[in-house]
Amino acid sequence: MAVHTLKITPIKNGTVIDHIPNGLALEVLHIIGVQTLDKDSTVSVAMHVRSGKLGWKDIVKVENMELSPRKVNAIALIAPTATIAIIRDYKVREKRSVDLPERILGILKCPNLNCISNQPEPLESEFVVSKRKPVVLTCAFCARAVDDLLHHLA
Amino acid sequence: MAVHTLKITPIKNGTVIDHIPNGLALEVLHIIGVQTLDKDSTVSVAMHVRSGKLGWKDIVKVENMELSPRKVNAIALIAPTATIAIIRDYKVREKRSVDLPERILGILKCPNLNCISNQPEPLESEFVVSKRKPVVLTCAFCARAVDDLLHHLA
Repeated sequence: MAVHTLKITPIKNGTVIDHIPNGLALEVLHIIGVQTLDKDSTVSVAMHVRSGKLGWKDIVKVENMELSPRKVNAIALIAPTATIAIIRDYKVREKRSVDLPERILGILKCPNLNCISNQPEPLESEFVVSKRKPVVLTCAFCARAVDDLLHHLA
Repeated sequence: MAVHTLKITPIKNGTVIDHIPNGLALEVLHIIGVQTLDKDSTVSVAMHVRSGKLGWKDIVKVENMELSPRKVNAIALIAPTATIAIIRDYKVREKRSVDLPERILGILKCPNLNCISNQPEPLESEFVVSKRKPVVLTCAFCARAVDDLLHHLA
């Protein structure tokens, strides 16, 4: 019966994002832009998995994709415990933790509807990391503070 | 290196939804209500996987959950090719195709904002399946036709 042998096979090239906080894999997929990926590159997700370090965690594995620095920053925002491994030719070529930068460009939408970043002319959102644990961001344009980051992903 | 051995382990009790059309696993997770599940029951998702029958497909596996008939109907709407296997004590106890019923209750939201089902009093949406291939639904209250089902999940 196929059920017992279903497994996530190793990927030749791609990215493994491990140690995602429990239950946040779908937000990571949203940041990656999974709906825009090639429909012939396999994406594997495991949610609510036992983890020695975290108790429970999520894992995301994406074939034929390497993350842009901007997407790594976005993942750092919502999943600061995450580790990212780049796979090339079946081997882990690079492994790193995500790291929250001082400024976040274009990932979140300012909740202040009157903010200049929400006006019709194209203007990229920009937030300053004003507190790190837990993360609080401040809009560089209108100084609105944002702490419920998940609700403001652009 | 963990990457090579990462696999979806067999589940003791739960549900496997296989043969989901390529790229629609996240919509199936939305229907299941993955965000409301226990955070200690593992959910595994594989998107864009090679399939003999379909060319490419998605698979969703959820521990400790059996689908209500209403959710099976909802899956039938967006993933008519899906098969559902119920696992109990590591064995497949039941396997079936999804089947589109004649009426769909409470899964979609009528796109007609003036429809009585969208008024403040609680009134469950109801659609009649007016065409099957491709699926077209008609609102039982206002007769508005809906064919882009993915955009109208409640």
